[in-house]
Amino acid sequence: MSAQIKVAVLGAAGRMGSEAVKAVTDAADMELVASLGRGDDLQQIIDAGATHIVDLSVPASTEQNVRFAIEHGLHAVVGTTGWSDERRAALEALLAEHPENGVLIAPNFALGSVLASAFAATAAKYFESVEIIELHHPNKVDAPSGTAVRTAELIAKSREAAGVAPSPDATETQLDGARGAEVDGIHVHSVRLRGLVAHQEVLLGGPGEQLTLRHDSYDRASFMPGVLLGLRTVASRPGLTYGLDGYLELGQ
Amino acid sequence: MSAQIKVAVLGAAGRMGSEAVKAVTDAADMELVASLGRGDDLQQIIDAGATHIVDLSVPASTEQNVRFAIEHGLHAVVGTTGWSDERRAALEALLAEHPENGVLIAPNFALGSVLASAFAATAAKYFESVEIIELHHPNKVDAPSGTAVRTAELIAKSREAAGVAPSPDATETQLDGARGAEVDGIHVHSVRLRGLVAHQEVLLGGPGEQLTLRHDSYDRASFMPGVLLGLRTVASRPGLTYGLDGYLELGQ
Amino acid sequence: MSAQIKVAVLGAAGRMGSEAVKAVTDAADMELVASLGRGDDLQQIIDAGATHIVDLSVPASTEQNVRFAIEHGLHAVVGTTGWSDERRAALEALLAEHPENGVLIAPNFALGSVLASAFAATAAKYFESVEIIELHHPNKVDAPSGTAVRTAELIAKSREAAGVAPSPDATETQLDGARGAEVDGIHVHSVRLRGLVAHQEVLLGGPGEQLTLRHDSYDRASFMPGVLLGLRTVASRPGLTYGLDGYLELGQ
Amino acid sequence: MSAQIKVAVLGAAGRMGSEAVKAVTDAADMELVASLGRGDDLQQIIDAGATHIVDLSVPASTEQNVRFAIEHGLHAVVGTTGWSDERRAALEALLAEHPENGVLIAPNFALGSVLASAFAATAAKYFESVEIIELHHPNKVDAPSGTAVRTAELIAKSREAAGVAPSPDATETQLDGARGAEVDGIHVHSVRLRGLVAHQEVLLGGPGEQLTLRHDSYDRASFMPGVLLGLRTVASRPGLTYGLDGYLELGQ
Repeated sequence: MSAQIKVAVLGAAGRMGSEAVKAVTDAADMELVASLGRGDDLQQIIDAGATHIVDLSVPASTEQNVRFAIEHGLHAVVGTTGWSDERRAALEALLAEHPENGVLIAPNFALGSVLASAFAATAAKYFESVEIIELHHPNKVDAPSGTAVRTAELIAKSREAAGVAPSPDATETQLDGARGAEVDGIHVHSVRLRGLVAHQEVLLGGPGEQLTLRHDSYDRASFMPGVLLGLRTVASRPGLTYGLDGYLELGQ
Repeated sequence: MSAQIKVAVLGAAGRMGSEAVKAVTDAADMELVASLGRGDDLQQIIDAGATHIVDLSVPASTEQNVRFAIEHGLHAVVGTTGWSDERRAALEALLAEHPENGVLIAPNFALGSVLASAFAATAAKYFESVEIIELHHPNKVDAPSGTAVRTAELIAKSREAAGVAPSPDATETQLDGARGAEVDGIHVHSVRLRGLVAHQEVLLGGPGEQLTLRHDSYDRASFMPGVLLGLRTVASRPGLTYGLDGYLELGQ
Repeated sequence: MSAQIKVAVLGAAGRMGSEAVKAVTDAADMELVASLGRGDDLQQIIDAGATHIVDLSVPASTEQNVRFAIEHGLHAVVGTTGWSDERRAALEALLAEHPENGVLIAPNFALGSVLASAFAATAAKYFESVEIIELHHPNKVDAPSGTAVRTAELIAKSREAAGVAPSPDATETQLDGARGAEVDGIHVHSVRLRGLVAHQEVLLGGPGEQLTLRHDSYDRASFMPGVLLGLRTVASRPGLTYGLDGYLELGQ
Repeated sequence: MSAQIKVAVLGAAGRMGSEAVKAVTDAADMELVASLGRGDDLQQIIDAGATHIVDLSVPASTEQNVRFAIEHGLHAVVGTTGWSDERRAALEALLAEHPENGVLIAPNFALGSVLASAFAATAAKYFESVEIIELHHPNKVDAPSGTAVRTAELIAKSREAAGVAPSPDATETQLDGARGAEVDGIHVHSVRLRGLVAHQEVLLGGPGEQLTLRHDSYDRASFMPGVLLGLRTVASRPGLTYGLDGYLELGQ
């Protein structure tokens, strides 16, 4: 098929990169034309005829990789961290000179997690109470998880914009820590348990009813449907999109 | 406050109606100006200076009530069943002559349930697998519940529009009924258990991840935030809106 | 039936007491012979031919009620609080003189809650990790709940007796409170949410697996099966039993 | 330590066997003295000084392996399937001649799963309603799962012994399959979802309350704590024990 997406994977030897190599290879509407690791010459991407890159390399090289892609007329889907405000501003300036090119930078490619956060922010306007429980393996060094903090921030922003009062709470005496941490006024509880991977529940309550949004992440494979969705969409979205939710149809 | 919503409740002696009387009375931005039961003269609504009606009466009188309200320049929020396609078409014709008036007819006022169904339809486009479990008290005579059937239909429609393949299923041998009922190709399981009220889970699965949307309904009180939201919104939405989701901001 | 259980309910006008009156009346193998409220003459119990009392009165009168029952050869099922160590010791001394009589004092009559706590203590010996999440309505003034504290204490005792190491936890940096409260080394998280009643989850984790024990309490009616079980069992258990778990067959 | 458990793993090249080799090697109180694959000479077990065998081979060789172990005074922990009633009877006859030797044959080594089944059978006596939901990956060919069928049988037996009535169910009209399969009168629902591994929920309901027992199995690693528990216990339990629950302290 002439319209096929020709993909070069950068950071192909890493854990995410090797999953992406597999996923692109298995996708019927894509062709894997190049796999680059650390130190490989970027010119290979052009020689192989790529139309898209997936950058899953390291913070030190991601900016150079993406600029190279844009300057050669390619679209880019980026999962590497390290995109500070400055880097993103510089990238947008470059994209202004290449108005046909699209770039997606996504801190999270798990569709279920991105959807759950978006749904939580939407629903939080309509309920009196909201709290977050995140559950992870016991080797995690920080609590709460970054995803839980971002979800709480989104929820708080959504409730503030809608003028919703803080969640009711009559607690007078508590054992230290019982009511969890507070992130922008939202209570967040962190469970650590052997056997778990990465899980999150947003609990919303109103008179006589409860809505629970739960996401379970078992495996790095969960990121690949999001990477493929990014590759299929990025050419039709010129400029920079930050966050996979920008590509999802969240209304009805 | 002059801009206050002046509400007449019709069907005020019923179970839903008496909850609505309480809820309207307690709402700071509303005034309950009339409560009508079976056989009461509708003229009372006008005499009391109502700007809105809430119709929670019976199928036999709801059409007459709503037409009366529109003809007198009032807005209407309607929870009574029995609005066939014919009735709704006739109502829309009447509303065409009263372009300032709004009517909301909602088969379900529980915000959590309406949101859960909408989220399920949105998310179902992005996952390989989806199934529904509904759980109710053991006195329920039908299975699956009406809400589960409607949720399955919404999901099936959303997946079909997006070109999503049927959920994978390698089952070769099954004990009769083990895989549940099928509604438009979506598997639905009905649990009946003493102690429960009305609960529903939509389970969505992709490689390495799961998204679960659960709604628990414990009490009729859960319908009142939706009724109040309807009353606060209906004046700004001329014409007929069918379903409370039409009033919710579901995108971001 | 001559062997029928003839029951006098004390504290019959209270919330629990009135439920008990209904439950005893509805039980085919029991007969409600007397219902006493505050200040009623205890002699009515004897005159009515009661064989058992259910005491759901107040701390100030429960001791006197139970002693009266024993001295007249009756069995007693007691849900009233206020049974200090001293009172229980005095009661056991009295029971030593009445070796045929049985008394059950139960701080919790909800079978599901009692079973969940017992199962949690049993299972906690076999898992690396254990944490508790309790969820209640937002009008509750203390956190964690008394049930969660008792469950944590039972779990800690069971793990200590079996020589199980503390749950693994690599947390280095946490937002204050994120990891919950600690009760005897067990992490306990308290969620407060409009719409909820009283709920508890014990989460147990080992390599590659998780066991979750969840109890939902929706209604005071949940105590009645435990009260009836107590009435049916107490005559065959002379002496004092503390805790409904003493009457449950927990092994196989 | 002289009292150390010296273990020979049979079927060491298989998926379970290789996990067992790792688990025994890592256990401080055990020594791996031999690892045998298909066709290896059983005499190696004796020459290596083993005191225990773990048999995770194939149905065709397990009986011979276990008989060899007993005849040489060793204890055996067996996870291989294929132990028919006849084979077990023959094994018990052999053990009668070797009264010091212990054998554990376990169809399931996941502690959480074994505990959940045992708890379900115990609790089912005390609740009006009980149903089972099992959830697996969509490549599973049979429904319900074997574990769900066995759990339902245990529950049915426990309820029958206690004289509990069937779960109430007022269903009059149902879409075919909605109420699930029936195993000995217990309703069982089978969910198949991409991303899942093996999960089971037993739901128990009474007036105003619910008890839920959920087991999640993510990984074959979950069997190893059960295998090690078997090895540590088998020498103190002469004769044949069938099922890991025989080694668990299930009461308090």
